[in-house]
Amino acid sequence: MIHWRRYFAELVGTAALLCAVIGSGIMAEQLAQGNMAIALLANTLATVFALYVLIETLGPVSGAHFNPVVSLVLVLRKDLAQHHFLGYVVAQLIGAALGAWVAHAMFDLEILQWSTKVRTGPAQWFAEAVATGGLLFVVLRSPSDKASSLVACYIGAAYWFTASTSFANPAAAFGRMFSNTFAGISPADVPAFVVAQIVGGLLAMVLVAALKSE
Amino acid sequence: MIHWRRYFAELVGTAALLCAVIGSGIMAEQLAQGNMAIALLANTLATVFALYVLIETLGPVSGAHFNPVVSLVLVLRKDLAQHHFLGYVVAQLIGAALGAWVAHAMFDLEILQWSTKVRTGPAQWFAEAVATGGLLFVVLRSPSDKASSLVACYIGAAYWFTASTSFANPAAAFGRMFSNTFAGISPADVPAFVVAQIVGGLLAMVLVAALKSE
Amino acid sequence: MIHWRRYFAELVGTAALLCAVIGSGIMAEQLAQGNMAIALLANTLATVFALYVLIETLGPVSGAHFNPVVSLVLVLRKDLAQHHFLGYVVAQLIGAALGAWVAHAMFDLEILQWSTKVRTGPAQWFAEAVATGGLLFVVLRSPSDKASSLVACYIGAAYWFTASTSFANPAAAFGRMFSNTFAGISPADVPAFVVAQIVGGLLAMVLVAALKSE
Amino acid sequence: MIHWRRYFAELVGTAALLCAVIGSGIMAEQLAQGNMAIALLANTLATVFALYVLIETLGPVSGAHFNPVVSLVLVLRKDLAQHHFLGYVVAQLIGAALGAWVAHAMFDLEILQWSTKVRTGPAQWFAEAVATGGLLFVVLRSPSDKASSLVACYIGAAYWFTASTSFANPAAAFGRMFSNTFAGISPADVPAFVVAQIVGGLLAMVLVAALKSE
Repeated sequence: MIHWRRYFAELVGTAALLCAVIGSGIMAEQLAQGNMAIALLANTLATVFALYVLIETLGPVSGAHFNPVVSLVLVLRKDLAQHHFLGYVVAQLIGAALGAWVAHAMFDLEILQWSTKVRTGPAQWFAEAVATGGLLFVVLRSPSDKASSLVACYIGAAYWFTASTSFANPAAAFGRMFSNTFAGISPADVPAFVVAQIVGGLLAMVLVAALKSE
Repeated sequence: MIHWRRYFAELVGTAALLCAVIGSGIMAEQLAQGNMAIALLANTLATVFALYVLIETLGPVSGAHFNPVVSLVLVLRKDLAQHHFLGYVVAQLIGAALGAWVAHAMFDLEILQWSTKVRTGPAQWFAEAVATGGLLFVVLRSPSDKASSLVACYIGAAYWFTASTSFANPAAAFGRMFSNTFAGISPADVPAFVVAQIVGGLLAMVLVAALKSE
Repeated sequence: MIHWRRYFAELVGTAALLCAVIGSGIMAEQLAQGNMAIALLANTLATVFALYVLIETLGPVSGAHFNPVVSLVLVLRKDLAQHHFLGYVVAQLIGAALGAWVAHAMFDLEILQWSTKVRTGPAQWFAEAVATGGLLFVVLRSPSDKASSLVACYIGAAYWFTASTSFANPAAAFGRMFSNTFAGISPADVPAFVVAQIVGGLLAMVLVAALKSE
Repeated sequence: MIHWRRYFAELVGTAALLCAVIGSGIMAEQLAQGNMAIALLANTLATVFALYVLIETLGPVSGAHFNPVVSLVLVLRKDLAQHHFLGYVVAQLIGAALGAWVAHAMFDLEILQWSTKVRTGPAQWFAEAVATGGLLFVVLRSPSDKASSLVACYIGAAYWFTASTSFANPAAAFGRMFSNTFAGISPADVPAFVVAQIVGGLLAMVLVAALKSE
């Protein structure tokens, strides 16, 4: 069944993405001697490189969403068949958790852990809406042959210009709640992030439509 | 009316650009423990990534100027219709202010503020003329399919080699005067920057013409 | 004989790669005042740039493997003739040692030295298997015109997200054991790294096949 | 006369290159609080970005050498007419000095100064030969549509993996001797650097020929 191949690609890609985000966060924090700007620079570079590579290598199989809001918006635009939505999201969430655990295993940390990092409040939620809105704006306006570099570069910028370091992805929030490290987020703070991300994604659809209108 | 769509793209793009410049400056300053070289590195990367993405995604609508000197020079070269000039500049200025305010909201800062950062003196003005001259040189000599990466890379270099960190854009100077943060500029210092930028832009036209002559 | 040209390209490329990895590690460690995150950032950038350049300039001659696991997997997939395997690997190993020695000569260090840096334990081995698996995944799924940037970016990410800083290459492990510097690895720790790398490479073949299946 | 246009392009490009190298060195040193790894990272990024932009924008006019060794090797290979050689080199040297002076003016430093930075000894000379050999290797083996990014990335790597931070260019050595800043070199040390650079360039011709032979 061709569908399983697509879901498998979403699982592998989201796992690799979260592994890159969390693993590079661990390495950066261990080496940065408390200078979190250097840690975030390293985390940014690793994420940008990983995203570019994953979108290029897995895009031909599944479209390389790795992100439930991307899948949702593409279903709403009828660019992804509705019957794929659940499979994509389940694969993304399983992949995200697996990615966190692989990172922990490589760094010899407790595999199973919960983040205690508080990320909450209206400013953070607004930042997540902006971050996800920007991401979807880029996804929807990228020519397909440039989507990989545009999405990767966008996230590289958004790590710095949004106050939340731009999760912009419910699967990322889900996976990062399993990691009590640099990139983590307390489980209690995930739902509000996800709501903000969905709101941002929907607003991007409006903005993109406005730029297309006469 | 198709024109509104172009002006709207200039507004959105300039807002996003200023939001990226100011937001990443705030984040970088908060994290860098006083090492301003690290802060400027982060600010540079975020700006380069944002510029590349914005020129690619909005270029097809408005040409992605986001900069009154670019619009001015393109009008003088008759590459932009003269009746567009005012609409472009107004959109750029409104967008620049909005971008500063969105950044403040994300970082939970006072929305309305004025910069007190002094940036003045002949060396700074000379730097702005060089920075803007270089930018226009790049804009005018870029093949259109490479303009996004060339402009982004140019600004990334100019952040470091010009003493003013290369505003190179009256709309950027305008927006940054609303932000008393890393990227700010005191309102009293803006007019001289703008004059220097226009001078630089005009000199670039001469230089480009000289390289074209027999 | 055309074969010698290919082996020579592998030798030159692997030498240049190791020289870049080790040399930039020396420079970075000398300048970083003990902040190893900054050192690894510099080491990452130099490696990414070098890999991109070497794959572009030598790829047309030999395929630009510079890595016995890459050669092994391509032989198993019949993309490299079996009678080339030994020549490739010998050239890669000689090149790797030469690269270390050239770096030492440039930095006025003892040419011949052995690393004493311990890199061992199950977490490091798991990290190397992940790192090499990821590398082969990228090699096997890259369109040929993008292999240079995809491989370079992958390694740039893997330097940070794998706990071993991603050797991912038996020739790199071999060459780096001759350098008692930032990038070194104690000779006693090399064999286990190589085993892990081979395992990772073979797992990548399985993963790539799974994504190709119906 | 078309020739003057080419020489003018070499002058402008070499001036801009040296201005970027020296200016970013000044800015980086002023901000880096003594951590020279951070300063060199910033200097590297600015140089890579500047080189890419300058080769793209001026390449169509003059070939964008900005480097007497490049011009020399291309004359020896008959890719540049011999009667152009002197004009190219004079333009490059004048441009290099101008670039240093523009950087000083922007940073409000004494315009005319001499570097006192000692860069000497066999290890440094060997490093310069390797650096320039590598540069010419890249120049001669790059497909023309990728020369800009390959040369820029090569220099970005070589800043770190060569002990001399890769001047690799007699015009750069000439211009940098006029600047008693981060990027400077004492005039007495320039001649040996130039000899090493020429030797490296010639060795690259041999290496490239070997890879082309049957």
